[in-house]
Amino acid sequence: MVDVRPGDLVRVVKRGGLVIEGVVLPSTEFTSENHLVIKLSSGYNVGVSLEDAVVEVLVEKYLEPATSEETSKVTVFRGGGNLKIAFVSTGGTIVSKVEYETGAVRPALNASDLVEFAPDFQELSSELVVVDFMRKLSENMTPEDWSRISEEVGKYLRSGADGVVVAHGTDTMSYTAAALAFSLRNLGNPVVLVGAQRSSDRPSTDALYNLRACPIVVRDAPFAEVVVAMHGTTDDLYTLIHRGVRVRKMHSSRRDAFQSINDVPLAKVYVREKKFELLNRRYLPRTRSSDVRILSRFSSKVSIIKSYPGIDCEIFDYLVDRGYRGVVVEGTGLGHVREECVESIRRATDSGVVVAMATQTIFGRVDLDVYTTGRKLLKAGVVPVDDMIPEVAFVKLSWLLGNFPEDSPSEIKSKLVSNMVNELGSPQSVEIFPRWYHGDRLREAEA
Amino acid sequence: MVDVRPGDLVRVVKRGGLVIEGVVLPSTEFTSENHLVIKLSSGYNVGVSLEDAVVEVLVEKYLEPATSEETSKVTVFRGGGNLKIAFVSTGGTIVSKVEYETGAVRPALNASDLVEFAPDFQELSSELVVVDFMRKLSENMTPEDWSRISEEVGKYLRSGADGVVVAHGTDTMSYTAAALAFSLRNLGNPVVLVGAQRSSDRPSTDALYNLRACPIVVRDAPFAEVVVAMHGTTDDLYTLIHRGVRVRKMHSSRRDAFQSINDVPLAKVYVREKKFELLNRRYLPRTRSSDVRILSRFSSKVSIIKSYPGIDCEIFDYLVDRGYRGVVVEGTGLGHVREECVESIRRATDSGVVVAMATQTIFGRVDLDVYTTGRKLLKAGVVPVDDMIPEVAFVKLSWLLGNFPEDSPSEIKSKLVSNMVNELGSPQSVEIFPRWYHGDRLREAEA
Repeated sequence: MVDVRPGDLVRVVKRGGLVIEGVVLPSTEFTSENHLVIKLSSGYNVGVSLEDAVVEVLVEKYLEPATSEETSKVTVFRGGGNLKIAFVSTGGTIVSKVEYETGAVRPALNASDLVEFAPDFQELSSELVVVDFMRKLSENMTPEDWSRISEEVGKYLRSGADGVVVAHGTDTMSYTAAALAFSLRNLGNPVVLVGAQRSSDRPSTDALYNLRACPIVVRDAPFAEVVVAMHGTTDDLYTLIHRGVRVRKMHSSRRDAFQSINDVPLAKVYVREKKFELLNRRYLPRTRSSDVRILSRFSSKVSIIKSYPGIDCEIFDYLVDRGYRGVVVEGTGLGHVREECVESIRRATDSGVVVAMATQTIFGRVDLDVYTTGRKLLKAGVVPVDDMIPEVAFVKLSWLLGNFPEDSPSEIKSKLVSNMVNELGSPQSVEIFPRWYHGDRLREAEA
Repeated sequence: MVDVRPGDLVRVVKRGGLVIEGVVLPSTEFTSENHLVIKLSSGYNVGVSLEDAVVEVLVEKYLEPATSEETSKVTVFRGGGNLKIAFVSTGGTIVSKVEYETGAVRPALNASDLVEFAPDFQELSSELVVVDFMRKLSENMTPEDWSRISEEVGKYLRSGADGVVVAHGTDTMSYTAAALAFSLRNLGNPVVLVGAQRSSDRPSTDALYNLRACPIVVRDAPFAEVVVAMHGTTDDLYTLIHRGVRVRKMHSSRRDAFQSINDVPLAKVYVREKKFELLNRRYLPRTRSSDVRILSRFSSKVSIIKSYPGIDCEIFDYLVDRGYRGVVVEGTGLGHVREECVESIRRATDSGVVVAMATQTIFGRVDLDVYTTGRKLLKAGVVPVDDMIPEVAFVKLSWLLGNFPEDSPSEIKSKLVSNMVNELGSPQSVEIFPRWYHGDRLREAEA
């Protein structure tokens, strides 16, 4: 029997003529020596008995687990295509593996292993620069990290990359995507954040499929925006390309956890067919220029406060005392907090704190003109952020306070509600609200 | 011409024989004297020219706007049915009207006007007790209000009501629904919260349809749970009956803003057909007993903290200093906060504060066993709340700390993750995650 290792692309020919081609997955306690688990190009995994079978290794690609924590290792590949792509890994599940001692998942793979695992990268690129930039689980990302990632990504855009792919943990991927969308302006080419809900060493990983979609976006996207590339369904059917300022992780574990909010996804990519399909005609067009503007400062003095019944209004005083300069309130409904808090909020705005109002309903827009509570909040200086996702309003406010330190609060407020990168003001569309399960009968009626 | 007033049920017979029956809506600046706007039983509103028409008032029901702020006015109606129903109004848009001076919406209608507007109440009930209990916009509800509403609703259940309907503002309706679900145990009969996204004096109001669904729930529901009755679609197609501990306002303005999270709605009601359809077989069964147990205390020393990149961990110390006894953290992904906060959280749990972990993804369950960050949080004493909605975990923790003051933090933690009223531990089901719009092609493929 030939020497087959996880990551190898193999062809297994069984007696009788059945041919199975795919990538060998790491063996588990459930696989015996006489079996291989192979990931088919369809995305499905099959167990193959090697009895009466001929195995041929088509391409050797072993996913060597990295042991060092060193970062910023740069590897350059020369591929068979004509694109210049940079791949910047920041960590996350996509570069993680299961620690067999503890069972926990930690970032331990090299970025170059990842792109080798996704052959489309080298197939489509003439020059592929792979950077092991950070190894962070994304819950630990900070606004200072957003600055560092912005500078790194901006560097490759400036040096003529046709696109930059950023591997990132999924927990706060949408926050970082929004941060890059504000900090990298006049992009010229797309920046694609990609991640995985299952670590890359697991047979069920979604990393491979999502990774393979990225160079196709770089090749075909007509937009120059910061986007998120994650599974569109629970199967390997297509990867959705979401606008970075309009996407949210909406499930703790599903592969299709990332979904567009108050907007239609920009595109989808059918990886097997290498097909790119545009879904949304509202975007910043690609110019292929390399004169990106980098505004990479973020203030760490911005907070998100979620409103809830009986909230202690002194939290606003606390934030003023702690030197906060911005607060995004996740209000209820159209953007409300209890009336009792209006005075504390007024004291905050009087002290120069920018208080923005978003909604905890996530979908829809805030409107402080409808109810008396909203009107009082407006009078207290609160700025409603229209249909901006609360987390995006938080990132934008952090970015504004970081990059425009000379601006008055009213100038910051005005910029906060001015559309910059399609983060607000989507056209009203019934389709934007997802369809919920209301019983079989309905589902049948719809089908 | 006969004297026709808004709220009257009229029959208009046009020359040629066209017959239009419905409820007259208030005139607006757009309706002329020779026109009526009529809400048909289909839910649609039509403008009717009175030229060559005969108008007959079938039932006079004028929606007299209340001017007083007095509450707890009790009115008893004798109807033609056989149910004993209590209708407790707490305020909200459903009892609100537009102030023509300012254009703002304020609670100003009598509860008895509302039930008169929804004839099904009197049709199905032998005794209908209508209580003007509060006139609060729901953003101003507090845990103390939950106690008061619990006592009031419990009183009618104890006195043999077949069901209690609670009119409530939509902003925090799901919080109050959860509060009642925990405070009223061994219900025997259903408690139905109902509201409106458009005030009842507006032609587009959704109040009437949702109200009419309530007595049908009281008549037909096989469950004795606290539920929320709100529009299932943007049309008057059906009202969804959501489990009170499994529902969330997911849009700031749509009629179908309320949707079930991590669970299937309990039922739907087709109002025109007066038809009740059960969707979910997991429920607390109706016993029609009246020995409800009321545990109506809520601690106001519980907070919700949303995690975000770079969050200042001192917020946990602040809460300890302010005497908080419980904190629900809306973590990222499977339930994470930045590792830097683990120490502050440990100090909080060491001081006896119960720190619970939910997820800001809203959908899915938390799992602190997968990643190293989660494991550290577990060691620091954090309790993961499985698939409980963050807001429900907050209400439950407030209720536990209010009603079991002698319990140790570990007893409270253990109760928090023990299922009581189907607030956690739903069976995994693909259908629970809504279907998002991924482009026309997909929608066609699905149809």
